[in-house]
Amino acid sequence: MGPEVIAKALAADSLHPICSPLVLGDPTILQRTFGFLGLGLQVAEVKEGSLPDLPPGALPVLPLSRLSPGASPVEIPVEESARASFAYVEKAGRMILAGQVEAIVTAPVSKEAISRLGIHFRGHTEFFAELAGIRDFVMMLAGERLRVALVTTHLPLSQVSESLTAEKILSVIEMTGRGLKEFWGFPTPRIAVTAFNPHAGEGGLFGKEETFISRAVDQARKRGWETSGPWPADSLFHRAVQGEFDAVVCMYHDQGLIPLKLLHFDTAVNVTLGLPFVRTSVDHGVAYDIAGKGIASPRSMEEAIKLAAQMAVRKRQAPNLKI
Amino acid sequence: MGPEVIAKALAADSLHPICSPLVLGDPTILQRTFGFLGLGLQVAEVKEGSLPDLPPGALPVLPLSRLSPGASPVEIPVEESARASFAYVEKAGRMILAGQVEAIVTAPVSKEAISRLGIHFRGHTEFFAELAGIRDFVMMLAGERLRVALVTTHLPLSQVSESLTAEKILSVIEMTGRGLKEFWGFPTPRIAVTAFNPHAGEGGLFGKEETFISRAVDQARKRGWETSGPWPADSLFHRAVQGEFDAVVCMYHDQGLIPLKLLHFDTAVNVTLGLPFVRTSVDHGVAYDIAGKGIASPRSMEEAIKLAAQMAVRKRQAPNLKI
Repeated sequence: MGPEVIAKALAADSLHPICSPLVLGDPTILQRTFGFLGLGLQVAEVKEGSLPDLPPGALPVLPLSRLSPGASPVEIPVEESARASFAYVEKAGRMILAGQVEAIVTAPVSKEAISRLGIHFRGHTEFFAELAGIRDFVMMLAGERLRVALVTTHLPLSQVSESLTAEKILSVIEMTGRGLKEFWGFPTPRIAVTAFNPHAGEGGLFGKEETFISRAVDQARKRGWETSGPWPADSLFHRAVQGEFDAVVCMYHDQGLIPLKLLHFDTAVNVTLGLPFVRTSVDHGVAYDIAGKGIASPRSMEEAIKLAAQMAVRKRQAPNLKI
Repeated sequence: MGPEVIAKALAADSLHPICSPLVLGDPTILQRTFGFLGLGLQVAEVKEGSLPDLPPGALPVLPLSRLSPGASPVEIPVEESARASFAYVEKAGRMILAGQVEAIVTAPVSKEAISRLGIHFRGHTEFFAELAGIRDFVMMLAGERLRVALVTTHLPLSQVSESLTAEKILSVIEMTGRGLKEFWGFPTPRIAVTAFNPHAGEGGLFGKEETFISRAVDQARKRGWETSGPWPADSLFHRAVQGEFDAVVCMYHDQGLIPLKLLHFDTAVNVTLGLPFVRTSVDHGVAYDIAGKGIASPRSMEEAIKLAAQMAVRKRQAPNLKI
């Protein structure tokens, strides 16, 4: 559904005043998608290093693949398509490191299909971090009413406890704080930290992880961050949504993503904090089941582009900002 | 906050046509609470076994304690108050087993304070189950848009995996199905079952618990329940709220309570399924921080009374119904 959400999002006039988009992709597929969706857009193939003045309705595309279009809009061999989508991602990384673009916004790719080509690819986030030589980064999901930052992501839940440390939690709190300050403009971000166990462990009765979560919160406070917790996770998100906190640092994937997706099913943005460049992403997968049907919502892509533009402006004002 | 939410809920005219309430409690404390809140209610002390005709505005109270009121509405010694609240709960259990009442609705008590008296008390739910000689029961939280049933409750999260079995999950699915059918009136309840790991384990990459969750779902289907899963938990609750499922069976406490409390912060009801009698409860704790301030919301108590009344009517129609 990449081409579909890109096409729908960039067909909206509202995004053009805030950014100069360049699509890294496949001109034929994109043009076919515009037609299929009945959008009045035209692909304008551009060369690397040049972004010519284009007439209204023309979308600059840097051609990185020439996939053979099948009969239906989604009928593209998986292998060919995976190879192409990896090429788009890789090129985006190289261009931003070379200063040719100011932000990357990614559409979903199939991790499995790329891995099957023998390419080591755990995900966009990890790929960009490696490319930038970064070890500590944070996956944040941001919606209008709730922002969550994850201490752990794609791990078996039974392994989360052993992989949590006070140092790791502190690092996520600080990256979240810096992100909220520098890119969202909160002068003193209020950061809530979840507990790991039900009822925050009820004084040690239901688990001990809260001990080192508390230690991380204390250390963050000593470093000047307005941090609190560990809070029982079940009532915390309601409080955050009511305006008591600017972000919630969560211990595991579903702890943060359950409330986020419940409130912001198709409007949340995935942001990587800790990178030396701006990168946002849609908050959904490839959704092969609805691809090519024209029913995919471009809301997450629109929000990802808006947030990337906002972050890039801040970064332009302070070029050495680490995100 | 027990007396406050009871007083506010029963002062509302809307509950009287659907039930004949009897409060097990402390007449002095209750009368003082009515006065403090400016409610026109009067305590009418009644004797066990009799429920006399009372004038409008009179609330029948079976006196079970005579606590010495302090200067402020909440100034009651913790020990005395814990002993009294346990007496109310115990009496309610004995009365319902004797057929003297048709439903129990509980206000919050302090587990810690009762335990400190040397009384073995893990919670209302466990107490009533033991009293009824029941081993298998389910804690369900029900709001207007979402119902969740928990396979495990008050356990360290790192111990949840080892305590999940296909048998236990199947039993919760079946009790949930029976509850939805018999008390909510769904002819064919649609039950979704959560995965345990992020992305439902992504084919075994992030954990193996989905194997026996799948087995439980298969067995439930074979027994005629419209069950599906294990579904990735992050997007499942959105689907349930959109109307795709009537209840979600969750593997651990926060997995179910995070979305439930986010949607239904002060209107959810806690129901025990699997007991031989009707029992509902408010979905909040004692909240000592706001007790006596007159600001507690009675919404959860109102909903708990309404649901108990609805369940009791169904039970009256089919007296041997196991809940």
